[in-house]
Amino acid sequence: MTRLSGIRSIMEDIAAAGQDVDDGDWLNLSPGNPSHIPEVVSAWQRLTREALDERFVEASTRYGPSRGTGGLVDALVGYFNLTYGWSIGPENVVVGPGSQMLSFIAATLFTGPGGDGRVRPLVLPRLPDYTGYQGLVMDPGGIVGVEPLVVDEGPHSFHYAVDTEALARLDTMGMMLLSSPANPTGSSLDAADLKALTDIAERRDVPLVVDHAYGEPFPGVVQTRVAPVLHPHVLNLFTFSKAGLPGERIAFAIGPAELIDPMVSFIANSALHAPQLVQATVESALTGRDIDVLTTRHITPYYKAKRAMAEALLEEALPDTLRWRLHSSDGGMFCWLHIDHDWFDDLELYELLKRKKMFVVPGRHFFVAPLDTPFLRTHGRRCVRLSLSPNEWAVAEGVNRLAEALRELRAERGGR
Amino acid sequence: MTRLSGIRSIMEDIAAAGQDVDDGDWLNLSPGNPSHIPEVVSAWQRLTREALDERFVEASTRYGPSRGTGGLVDALVGYFNLTYGWSIGPENVVVGPGSQMLSFIAATLFTGPGGDGRVRPLVLPRLPDYTGYQGLVMDPGGIVGVEPLVVDEGPHSFHYAVDTEALARLDTMGMMLLSSPANPTGSSLDAADLKALTDIAERRDVPLVVDHAYGEPFPGVVQTRVAPVLHPHVLNLFTFSKAGLPGERIAFAIGPAELIDPMVSFIANSALHAPQLVQATVESALTGRDIDVLTTRHITPYYKAKRAMAEALLEEALPDTLRWRLHSSDGGMFCWLHIDHDWFDDLELYELLKRKKMFVVPGRHFFVAPLDTPFLRTHGRRCVRLSLSPNEWAVAEGVNRLAEALRELRAERGGR
Repeated sequence: MTRLSGIRSIMEDIAAAGQDVDDGDWLNLSPGNPSHIPEVVSAWQRLTREALDERFVEASTRYGPSRGTGGLVDALVGYFNLTYGWSIGPENVVVGPGSQMLSFIAATLFTGPGGDGRVRPLVLPRLPDYTGYQGLVMDPGGIVGVEPLVVDEGPHSFHYAVDTEALARLDTMGMMLLSSPANPTGSSLDAADLKALTDIAERRDVPLVVDHAYGEPFPGVVQTRVAPVLHPHVLNLFTFSKAGLPGERIAFAIGPAELIDPMVSFIANSALHAPQLVQATVESALTGRDIDVLTTRHITPYYKAKRAMAEALLEEALPDTLRWRLHSSDGGMFCWLHIDHDWFDDLELYELLKRKKMFVVPGRHFFVAPLDTPFLRTHGRRCVRLSLSPNEWAVAEGVNRLAEALRELRAERGGR
Repeated sequence: MTRLSGIRSIMEDIAAAGQDVDDGDWLNLSPGNPSHIPEVVSAWQRLTREALDERFVEASTRYGPSRGTGGLVDALVGYFNLTYGWSIGPENVVVGPGSQMLSFIAATLFTGPGGDGRVRPLVLPRLPDYTGYQGLVMDPGGIVGVEPLVVDEGPHSFHYAVDTEALARLDTMGMMLLSSPANPTGSSLDAADLKALTDIAERRDVPLVVDHAYGEPFPGVVQTRVAPVLHPHVLNLFTFSKAGLPGERIAFAIGPAELIDPMVSFIANSALHAPQLVQATVESALTGRDIDVLTTRHITPYYKAKRAMAEALLEEALPDTLRWRLHSSDGGMFCWLHIDHDWFDDLELYELLKRKKMFVVPGRHFFVAPLDTPFLRTHGRRCVRLSLSPNEWAVAEGVNRLAEALRELRAERGGR
């Protein structure tokens, strides 16, 4: 917990590179920050102003319930019951200061040393996955990742699938956690994956935590293949970050009361509760269904177009002789690129691009222990994540510098 | 961590008692919520509106640094250097989502099982202290409190002093934590106490965490006896909660970089960072010195007057034959009342007052293990905390019901 995870060290790198990498010569294709879509920004500013005008005293000048304000919890219950035909109640909901914090709480509650002294690890069932998960556990060795199956989809396209057999072979686990749609790949669980994962969660009697940060019902940055589910072993995490409010740290979890209750108590003892003016703000975005308008009219189409643009640019810019492919994704904030050559190394590309004043994220940071496997020594070092949240010019220019860097790297390392 | 601490269970009790205990017949003299002082509320609403109008995009729509926004960190550095003649830098500051969370982080980092397998407990060097500290440790038995010395000050007044000899006798500790001025008593460390505590911290090589939630430089709810200090083993916690923004969870710590750095990393891995619109808001309250005006012109005088009123009411209402005394305090949000009779029991008083539709907090919740000592079986069960944050009518009527309840309890239990 006292070390910086891989991606945070890149953020330090970026901070060191200059005041504002987004301006000037620097190209930053590393960020996980959502794009500034004008309609989205102005809607949140308006909703925040309404909350400030009408509800400041109750929100900001009082302590509140650790589960979340009554108004927001009821709004979430109503929204999800209406959207998915569920019949959840307030006991199935907890609001927290960001989904990173909710993941941290779940990992602290459900993993670590068990009563018998054995460590119950945090299991990431499908690598690669969000780098922030690596900072959640305090014991070194407290996290285990499962290598994915690689499924070809054509010359420049592939996807990862969950290796459920390898997952089932793990001898111990405390909790499973994955993002779906995933950061960095855009990979979304299908019905069969979900069934396999919930079966394992049931058999092992551990929680399966599904982080919907990019998916349904909002922000819809990536099209999902299956909707969130209610299940006695599934804890669903949702956040308003990619819907436009990353700076305000507001998220929530939905699941069985048996999993939600200890999280509420943990929040009571640590953060007390999530900040409340933003709770009033998102409450009205839910009850007024503004959030649906932002998602379907602005956010989803924006990333769909951006992704299509990036795919076209990569097809055009990358050399014909290069064996490259993208993880398939319907929309999304990232391109996950696999360069299948012996001469390729993600860290070397990172350093070379840095000399060209451009930041990307080396793929290896999205993998976790055990790191020294044949798959991770090859595939695991041959990937890179490009962010599509910077503006169109930056993405286009970034693809050009990337293509140039790849040519140079190939020449230098003796690739053909 | 999955259990509710004592005071949270009272909050559940209050929630069960009715929609809004502050209205109607119920009197709630239990809350830790600051009073709604009109000038203070309107100043924060205005400052929040300015932040929303001018800085929404940079604050709310972007992720930010885990240490705190550059603007707020710089403002804190400037404010404290100017106020106290210090020369701290950004490396000495971390902003967090509430001081409860900062306490939680410190306790998680600095207490618990050590490398040698021994538990390094969280030590509360001067009981009674804030109940929320009891929820900070995950191991049962991971927290130890030191009984105070009781110093008479007259017929109806006393104060607690740190028993530094008993503290020095503890065979192991991970970190010391205390509020000064204290919740519930208003007790503030003097120079000798502070010297004794820092000596022990140095000798044991553990952090001394001093929580200034009620004191200097803001909100000034209670007059402090010594200003915050810089010391290689001291971590100072400050919050904007009692200055009027409890709902927004914004706080910060100041101390040596060796203690601050791991806290920044912990925040990066758990909460990512504190919410940011409120960071912009408090930044301008610091740079514009609005916070000083609120403190000196409104908050400090308000609580000073409220406390004087409560003391006068208690003198008038409590029977002459009752052995009662207040912990002395210069201002403050609470009265800490000690009823020195065999027939008195704080939980019985709590239940009796509940039947009279009034809430207080039984004193025993502010003490921690080891609980079964002669001091705690007597003194520890003969105290009660009254909050002065409700309006004047509620405080006055509360004192009357309390006096009535004490007469009944004495008659019932055979006291004279």
